[in-house]
Amino acid sequence: MLGLNTADLPDNQASRKDGNERIISHYSKVRQLSESLCQPLEIEDYIIQTMPDVSPPKWHLAHTSWFFEQFILIPYLKGYQPFHSSYHYLFNSYYETAGQMWSRPKRGLLSRPTVAEIYEYRHYVDEKIKFLEESMGSAPQWETEITPLIELGTHHEQQHQELLLTDIKHIFANNPLRPAYRTDSNSVEIKQTTIQQTLQWHSYEGGLYTVGHEGDGFYYDNEKPNHQMYLQPFRFASTLVTNGDYLAFIEAGGYKQPQHWLSDGWRIIKEQRWQSPLYWEQKEDNSWWHMTLIGLQPISLDDPVCHVSYYEADAYARWAKHRLPTEIEWEVVAKTLPCQGNFLDSGFLYPISSPKNLQEPNQMFGDVWEWTSSPYSSYPGYRPPAGAIGEYNGKFMCNQMVLRGGSCISSKNHLRASYRNFFPPDARWQFTGFRLAEDR
Amino acid sequence: MLGLNTADLPDNQASRKDGNERIISHYSKVRQLSESLCQPLEIEDYIIQTMPDVSPPKWHLAHTSWFFEQFILIPYLKGYQPFHSSYHYLFNSYYETAGQMWSRPKRGLLSRPTVAEIYEYRHYVDEKIKFLEESMGSAPQWETEITPLIELGTHHEQQHQELLLTDIKHIFANNPLRPAYRTDSNSVEIKQTTIQQTLQWHSYEGGLYTVGHEGDGFYYDNEKPNHQMYLQPFRFASTLVTNGDYLAFIEAGGYKQPQHWLSDGWRIIKEQRWQSPLYWEQKEDNSWWHMTLIGLQPISLDDPVCHVSYYEADAYARWAKHRLPTEIEWEVVAKTLPCQGNFLDSGFLYPISSPKNLQEPNQMFGDVWEWTSSPYSSYPGYRPPAGAIGEYNGKFMCNQMVLRGGSCISSKNHLRASYRNFFPPDARWQFTGFRLAEDR
Amino acid sequence: MLGLNTADLPDNQASRKDGNERIISHYSKVRQLSESLCQPLEIEDYIIQTMPDVSPPKWHLAHTSWFFEQFILIPYLKGYQPFHSSYHYLFNSYYETAGQMWSRPKRGLLSRPTVAEIYEYRHYVDEKIKFLEESMGSAPQWETEITPLIELGTHHEQQHQELLLTDIKHIFANNPLRPAYRTDSNSVEIKQTTIQQTLQWHSYEGGLYTVGHEGDGFYYDNEKPNHQMYLQPFRFASTLVTNGDYLAFIEAGGYKQPQHWLSDGWRIIKEQRWQSPLYWEQKEDNSWWHMTLIGLQPISLDDPVCHVSYYEADAYARWAKHRLPTEIEWEVVAKTLPCQGNFLDSGFLYPISSPKNLQEPNQMFGDVWEWTSSPYSSYPGYRPPAGAIGEYNGKFMCNQMVLRGGSCISSKNHLRASYRNFFPPDARWQFTGFRLAEDR
Amino acid sequence: MLGLNTADLPDNQASRKDGNERIISHYSKVRQLSESLCQPLEIEDYIIQTMPDVSPPKWHLAHTSWFFEQFILIPYLKGYQPFHSSYHYLFNSYYETAGQMWSRPKRGLLSRPTVAEIYEYRHYVDEKIKFLEESMGSAPQWETEITPLIELGTHHEQQHQELLLTDIKHIFANNPLRPAYRTDSNSVEIKQTTIQQTLQWHSYEGGLYTVGHEGDGFYYDNEKPNHQMYLQPFRFASTLVTNGDYLAFIEAGGYKQPQHWLSDGWRIIKEQRWQSPLYWEQKEDNSWWHMTLIGLQPISLDDPVCHVSYYEADAYARWAKHRLPTEIEWEVVAKTLPCQGNFLDSGFLYPISSPKNLQEPNQMFGDVWEWTSSPYSSYPGYRPPAGAIGEYNGKFMCNQMVLRGGSCISSKNHLRASYRNFFPPDARWQFTGFRLAEDR
Repeated sequence: MLGLNTADLPDNQASRKDGNERIISHYSKVRQLSESLCQPLEIEDYIIQTMPDVSPPKWHLAHTSWFFEQFILIPYLKGYQPFHSSYHYLFNSYYETAGQMWSRPKRGLLSRPTVAEIYEYRHYVDEKIKFLEESMGSAPQWETEITPLIELGTHHEQQHQELLLTDIKHIFANNPLRPAYRTDSNSVEIKQTTIQQTLQWHSYEGGLYTVGHEGDGFYYDNEKPNHQMYLQPFRFASTLVTNGDYLAFIEAGGYKQPQHWLSDGWRIIKEQRWQSPLYWEQKEDNSWWHMTLIGLQPISLDDPVCHVSYYEADAYARWAKHRLPTEIEWEVVAKTLPCQGNFLDSGFLYPISSPKNLQEPNQMFGDVWEWTSSPYSSYPGYRPPAGAIGEYNGKFMCNQMVLRGGSCISSKNHLRASYRNFFPPDARWQFTGFRLAEDR
Repeated sequence: MLGLNTADLPDNQASRKDGNERIISHYSKVRQLSESLCQPLEIEDYIIQTMPDVSPPKWHLAHTSWFFEQFILIPYLKGYQPFHSSYHYLFNSYYETAGQMWSRPKRGLLSRPTVAEIYEYRHYVDEKIKFLEESMGSAPQWETEITPLIELGTHHEQQHQELLLTDIKHIFANNPLRPAYRTDSNSVEIKQTTIQQTLQWHSYEGGLYTVGHEGDGFYYDNEKPNHQMYLQPFRFASTLVTNGDYLAFIEAGGYKQPQHWLSDGWRIIKEQRWQSPLYWEQKEDNSWWHMTLIGLQPISLDDPVCHVSYYEADAYARWAKHRLPTEIEWEVVAKTLPCQGNFLDSGFLYPISSPKNLQEPNQMFGDVWEWTSSPYSSYPGYRPPAGAIGEYNGKFMCNQMVLRGGSCISSKNHLRASYRNFFPPDARWQFTGFRLAEDR
Repeated sequence: MLGLNTADLPDNQASRKDGNERIISHYSKVRQLSESLCQPLEIEDYIIQTMPDVSPPKWHLAHTSWFFEQFILIPYLKGYQPFHSSYHYLFNSYYETAGQMWSRPKRGLLSRPTVAEIYEYRHYVDEKIKFLEESMGSAPQWETEITPLIELGTHHEQQHQELLLTDIKHIFANNPLRPAYRTDSNSVEIKQTTIQQTLQWHSYEGGLYTVGHEGDGFYYDNEKPNHQMYLQPFRFASTLVTNGDYLAFIEAGGYKQPQHWLSDGWRIIKEQRWQSPLYWEQKEDNSWWHMTLIGLQPISLDDPVCHVSYYEADAYARWAKHRLPTEIEWEVVAKTLPCQGNFLDSGFLYPISSPKNLQEPNQMFGDVWEWTSSPYSSYPGYRPPAGAIGEYNGKFMCNQMVLRGGSCISSKNHLRASYRNFFPPDARWQFTGFRLAEDR
Repeated sequence: MLGLNTADLPDNQASRKDGNERIISHYSKVRQLSESLCQPLEIEDYIIQTMPDVSPPKWHLAHTSWFFEQFILIPYLKGYQPFHSSYHYLFNSYYETAGQMWSRPKRGLLSRPTVAEIYEYRHYVDEKIKFLEESMGSAPQWETEITPLIELGTHHEQQHQELLLTDIKHIFANNPLRPAYRTDSNSVEIKQTTIQQTLQWHSYEGGLYTVGHEGDGFYYDNEKPNHQMYLQPFRFASTLVTNGDYLAFIEAGGYKQPQHWLSDGWRIIKEQRWQSPLYWEQKEDNSWWHMTLIGLQPISLDDPVCHVSYYEADAYARWAKHRLPTEIEWEVVAKTLPCQGNFLDSGFLYPISSPKNLQEPNQMFGDVWEWTSSPYSSYPGYRPPAGAIGEYNGKFMCNQMVLRGGSCISSKNHLRASYRNFFPPDARWQFTGFRLAEDR
């Protein structure tokens, strides 16, 4: 499931110690970031669950710790005492083979354990992980088994950091008091007028391409095996679809015209009465605003559209007489480009507009996760790892669509060109947008 | 709606001032008690809602303050600035004519306002009420309009104090960690063996009785007008049905035999899979335990059964070849007895067993609210007061059953013989029990 | 449960034979009427169920036969072979103690048995009942046990004849083709203008009244025991509330003003988006029409309003500054009047307007069932009969309101002043209307 | 959408007339078959809908006629009068751009139009189609526009013939009387013991393959464009998974072990309490039976397993340490084989066992639709046709899985190697089974 390439590590003690230090230091940074991200929260904000997909922030803090406890400390640290006998039941997410768990839609019904107790839990686990390194850092298992699991655990926690922010956004957006997660953003300039952005098309040849993770570095099991795919020639849009673009679709009556929509999508927009992206609202003066992590803001037309479902992305593309790219097309393009963009690290916490007239596709990494037209399924020859860890990715390969590229709340070092994210086609609370493609 | 008898107050300034002081002092005590009752809570406990009927504790604290703000401060205090412009929307419960409100089942989706802000709100309102007395205490409206509303508001708050405790109990009971609300109860002796309690029957004559509130003192509108009712002769049980009695019903297969049950009740016990009172659970050794405000406890057979629905009370009575009393029978008996018993004031926080061989019906007040066989409807000639305050009692006169007598978490000075409580027949999270009656 | 007074029958064979003939002849007439009522149906109309409360017509035909089979033929006819081994399961309605049954909301999922098979079933049962009389007509059980059960069975079937018509109406009204049950009604004159009807008020004294069934003749168990009730003086409206009256309430915004409504009623009209009685619709020219058993018709303003829920009746009364009568008030008035009016026997199949300026309350029997303000509960000393037959009335004494007087689709010989019908307060598909009362 | 190759037709009147006759004759045969398939039904069986996915048989008969009326008669037959003005509303299935329609889950709530009226409708449409040929058969539009639409309409009707039978099976299977659709099947031998069937594996090379419809003859739009795909080498099972194979999975506890299941599948088998294929039941003697179109039958271990969802097929494959084939693998194999097997034409109406030791994969066509591991999505360059007809296939390309090969109730001349059927992964009421594949 995990490809930390340990083969090339120099085989001496010094470098071994360096490697261990690097791993523990990375572990500590990731763990610390989860807590930093919660720094603006009141205790009250940690507890609630505004829809079944959302988890209370305290749950994320606990679950990511449970992951280390369950898959590393219990199997590898001799004599380890779990922090609390009920936490396994409360903080297992979906690892069926690891035992029974508290029902997901009821995560917001638990006032206890308190937030303070969960921070204690985190620190207990952190201490024990460090102790594990001290006691087993030179054992062979450390390198072959534990290090890969720690790396997996940190990537797992990075995923939950993103969920933490999307869930906090949902919690705040559903409160009529409209709290802002971050209030220190005086510098944000909202550009209300559209730059005459010239969408450019980049052409790619058809033929056989190699798809999937290649080279060193961490990857998830679903990025493998790499394999050949035959593609038709295609064109790829230089930038993401913007709020301004999407507003044109709304104003043209896109949400009222069945011909643009997948059958399931049409049913859902009727049932849910969707008429714009999630978090958008129109004031009495007809101006459009949206809830962001920096509070309620006017919509900036040049910024990428965000919080749309697959159905909306697909309907827009059909209306615009283009299509969404496949995940393979996206990956083929992305592999030619550096992983740079607007990530969590930049601190904006919302997607930002792109410069014009670039030589290459822009906004590939960061800003918003890009819906592709590819249903999430396994690569040829895929095998999930054995045991509960094998429930990480493979068992979700149904009824989900692949998203690529990461968002403005992803950590840069969590992303890569072969990374496959996935959500059901009606999910909107993630930072999800899209770009267009077309046949040549 | 409210019968504070002001006619007899001596007509001089000194006594007027005493009266005002008494009212403000009562107000302060009641207000203080709400906060004291929350003293054992963590901030996390204030926020959540474990089912639609339950409100988060912070909501109770805010709503009871809103009641004073909405019905007293806004109409009577010149220049009053509401504490926060959104609180009217957030903390109105069901006063439709007072405007729109946040949906009840979504009360647990609000992390903000924080608990600290709600305490601020409470203190702001308290201060303004005191200021109102200072500035208007000698105006005629004070006595004719404001005082009755303050009294209504304190009774309203006492009702919510009871709900606060039932809701906290529900919140704690649904948490697998099983927190206890009060942990200092070393003195509780659990009596596992049944005293051979001789249930006694007290006889009452048929004929015309006067029903409804009589005399001075506060009453709710639904206790009036008093009027005559013709009763058949009846017998009335000396004590409440106990856990031991009810266990015999369970063990005799009562939950599996349709002939004891109302049609709606049978449907509900099937749908909900009820097999015992709420909060009861049977351990592997077959012993019965129940969740209480002092934590999970073994069931004491002599204590009154509690947390049963009307359907269960009615089914038990039919199985036992008796019946439930009507609310009028209950009131006729209660009017001959003093209002004494096991109230919130005693500090037990659970119903306790009765002494034997008494000359009169016992446990009439306190311990548990007693289900009667009377659907909740209006007394002949009943008129609710005008305006939003009129939504207090009358609009619930459908699909509810009357309960009488108060419980172990009611304030003694909140109760009286004519007091009519009401809940839907499937409600179980209140402290509800029952006693038997029969025809003579 | 049933009070056929057999004590006074002359004690000789000749009159015994007459009595038996009379009973069998009555049985045959009632049974025949069920089939006549289905004569306008196509086979397709017998099968479907347009909501859980509705049963397919074929089910009514079968269930009423099952009643005779289950409670008479099986216990009393030696060697009786049930018509089909599965019919007990398929056509038991709610007699839990008689065994398991096919779920009510799934009655419309059964294409088989065919309609022809069900008619066969009916005729088989009819034949066996006649054979039972021939073989046991002079046995003592015939008079003491069987005759009362046959009489109960015919009243049971008369109740289902009414349900048959209300269910057919629902089935036809929900079909966009709008079929008419009866198309031969050329003579119906629709009066679109309101007669200046002077609603009159009749006064009744307070005091002790005897309530419940008295004298000879059939009655249901829930009409007994008769007993004394103390009433306040009251006034009683001379006629039913009309379509014209009710339209004034609609046009005054009655469905938009919470102050008129019970809390449950307000919730339901919001959820269900009720804005007028069931089956009413407003055309583009603003004229009001309603579906009837003779097809879609313009609303006649002088006819009684029909197909309103208790909530709507109660809200109208509050808006009109009156109230609904209690069931006891209704009965006190009705006992002074003959049982005459617009019944099934008259053939109109819809409620008709009343003449003016009468000396006595009019439209008491027939036209529409009248909602009273009385929750359906037991009379003092009530005991249901033993066995499954005891599930007839008593087990529904919760969450229902009493209706009195019968409707335009009730058989005249099925009604009497003490007859208590009952439905949940949100039921609208029965022929339900109301009249006003007030305190003196 | 439709590929009738008209280019090669000889350009003279004689052959033109022959072509027209052939088309009308094919039309008539297909139309007649729908009615023949309904021959065993009682009128009652035509009306009901046992779940939202099921349509009443009369609806299928009407909808397929509406298709010809809507897409051919109205646009092409001058002066055509639709049979009934409401049928467009009642019998449009999902063509949103063709206008509003009666809600799908309410199709079983319509007793009218009667079955006789619907047969009249069919014959009216048939007559008009013949008249259209007579009047326009030599016009250019006939060949370029109308003929392709008639051919599409007949394929559409063949699809509904299959749905008709699956829906009748569901209607009968849900009836406790267990009616059989066909009772003349004396010749059916049920083989209770398993032949020692040697499952064989056939190997296929990796490389570039052409996928999609090629050559003449009818095809659906979703089979185009044909295009190249690069495959890994694979092995393909010689026969379908049998009841005996699947029973081993059940008996090994397959339905209780989360590790075999997709996450969505595990949730659904818990929610729906699935423990075996649809229509299977275990008698008290532990023998397994299943409902078939010839009534309730013992399960024959060598017959292909049927009525399993994608989730069950996928879980079985994982348990068996193999996998499902992709739709491309299936097509690559099928294109080497003739379209022969157990179809509707054979009259069995259930899947039958395969002979052993064959040189090639068997049971590819007919018996059961085979679940593949491929989510249903568009081929590169796919464009649906313009207008309402374009809603035929493309708008369902989400949340569905591809099935290949046809079933025992498909018409042979409706099938081909490139045919792509699709259903949601939880659908079980179709004749769905599967075979295994594996990587080489």
